[in-house]
Amino acid sequence: MLNRVCSLFGIRYPIIQAGMVWCSGWKLASVVSEKGGLGIIGAGSMYPEVLREHILKLKKVTANPFAVNVPLLYPDIDLLMKVIADEKVPVVFTSAGNPAAWTGWLKERGITVVHVVPNVKLAVKCEQRGVDAIVCEGFEAGGHNGKDEITSMCLIPQVRDAVQIPVIAAGGIADGRAMAAAFSLGAEGVQIGSRFAVTLESSAHPHFKQKVCESDDAATMLVMKSVVPVRLIKNTFFETITNAEQRCASPEELKSILGKRRAKAGIFEGDLTEGELEIGQVAGLINDIPSAAEVFDRLLAEYKSAVSALPELT
Amino acid sequence: MLNRVCSLFGIRYPIIQAGMVWCSGWKLASVVSEKGGLGIIGAGSMYPEVLREHILKLKKVTANPFAVNVPLLYPDIDLLMKVIADEKVPVVFTSAGNPAAWTGWLKERGITVVHVVPNVKLAVKCEQRGVDAIVCEGFEAGGHNGKDEITSMCLIPQVRDAVQIPVIAAGGIADGRAMAAAFSLGAEGVQIGSRFAVTLESSAHPHFKQKVCESDDAATMLVMKSVVPVRLIKNTFFETITNAEQRCASPEELKSILGKRRAKAGIFEGDLTEGELEIGQVAGLINDIPSAAEVFDRLLAEYKSAVSALPELT
Repeated sequence: MLNRVCSLFGIRYPIIQAGMVWCSGWKLASVVSEKGGLGIIGAGSMYPEVLREHILKLKKVTANPFAVNVPLLYPDIDLLMKVIADEKVPVVFTSAGNPAAWTGWLKERGITVVHVVPNVKLAVKCEQRGVDAIVCEGFEAGGHNGKDEITSMCLIPQVRDAVQIPVIAAGGIADGRAMAAAFSLGAEGVQIGSRFAVTLESSAHPHFKQKVCESDDAATMLVMKSVVPVRLIKNTFFETITNAEQRCASPEELKSILGKRRAKAGIFEGDLTEGELEIGQVAGLINDIPSAAEVFDRLLAEYKSAVSALPELT
Repeated sequence: MLNRVCSLFGIRYPIIQAGMVWCSGWKLASVVSEKGGLGIIGAGSMYPEVLREHILKLKKVTANPFAVNVPLLYPDIDLLMKVIADEKVPVVFTSAGNPAAWTGWLKERGITVVHVVPNVKLAVKCEQRGVDAIVCEGFEAGGHNGKDEITSMCLIPQVRDAVQIPVIAAGGIADGRAMAAAFSLGAEGVQIGSRFAVTLESSAHPHFKQKVCESDDAATMLVMKSVVPVRLIKNTFFETITNAEQRCASPEELKSILGKRRAKAGIFEGDLTEGELEIGQVAGLINDIPSAAEVFDRLLAEYKSAVSALPELT
């Protein structure tokens, strides 16, 4: 095995496809796992029985390890966790909540647990609570994010220095150059979201994928910091929220403007004006909609090329 | 010469010490230039005749190339530029303004021009206007910053892909791991501020340096986005500004709270409660106050170690 991340998950390459609402079902995850990375089914947008279906379908097409991502704010989390245990999911990535809540329960069942953190303090807490590895997610990542606004460049080495368990970098990684950067900074694995969200196998709506392809470096922004910070492509909904924030609307008013189902509308149904278009700041580097296998091959080739071009300073 | 950045400046190592108000006078810049990097005198906090004095003192201790950083908002900029031309400064870094304003004038006098940019659009404009190289400065950088909040991880490769001239990375680089990351992302040089601000030769107040050493990953935040965005360590002044922003104070009120001389008070005079403590988010990685030469040697050693630890993915 290449390193501790590969050993922990039993995978060939330390490349993890992020669990993403409305994007990463069995189709996407199975390709990444079959290629030798770790595919993740994003359970955040699935009913428990839908998750079970995805797990069963994935297992039919690959015998390789995979994972399920569980946002700990999920309402029926007991039912979701039961499906995960029933179906013998080997690895669970938890996010958006207290790492202590489910780590013990999952580990008693032989399941490897990874938790997503936005700062050093929570990384240390994860290690103390027995989590097996950490995803440190930078400010540039898409969707929900931390309040400290710590970027991948600053977060990865500080988390690396603060814990003993393996660190997986997330946020701003869409090509092999950024993979090499993340490993230089001390990561032993990379979790890649946005790039895999814009592939043929992603369940996102074609209009959403096309919108990401047209985005530039300044297309996204982190908003709703007083409620729950989320990184979105600027659109009509974004302008509505930003205008409300600029006149100091209360968190209650912001929540009421947000309402329900906007992420589904934007990502899954392709409502580009009123939906929440969750994607990373790295959207500006994403310009096509290839297969997930093609993305995987590119990542490896670009990584090799980036590493071999590094100057020797003597 | 190692690469185009080394050739352009005539230096051995593509390591540039950022020009920083109240930190980088001739003492700091001369050490970095003498070590084979590019030292920069930060003219933003100097009267024109003070700048001349710093240039003359620097030239007495090193014959190596150096640069002056000029924020284009400087009030008496004509006088400053005259000193730069009189004293045959070989390289000028301009920032915070229109790259077209002085590039032609400087290049007619044989001076190499570098401009600092926070996004791809301005990078392309710089190239069109004849700038020789670009510093792309990420959201994590200390002090004044752009409004697009683009992080180094996302900005460096996108600028690299958009222009032909050499790209120098700034923001989040305080050790050799981040240097390796920046080069992986496509930079041909690194500009390092915060780490050199906390050295024996920096003119910053000892209390300011000590405060940075005690800072953690979440110690800084970008504020005053409606006026002029600036990254600061959280202190009493920061709380005052943040509270005013949260009740939607007008830009005029924010400017009046800010007043004058707060950066000098914080950085140069060591007023840790009411001063502006400008430093990068990477402050959490800075834990001691070594000499600038020691920092330079560490950067080279850490870079080598980071590059040699990169895994081969086959």
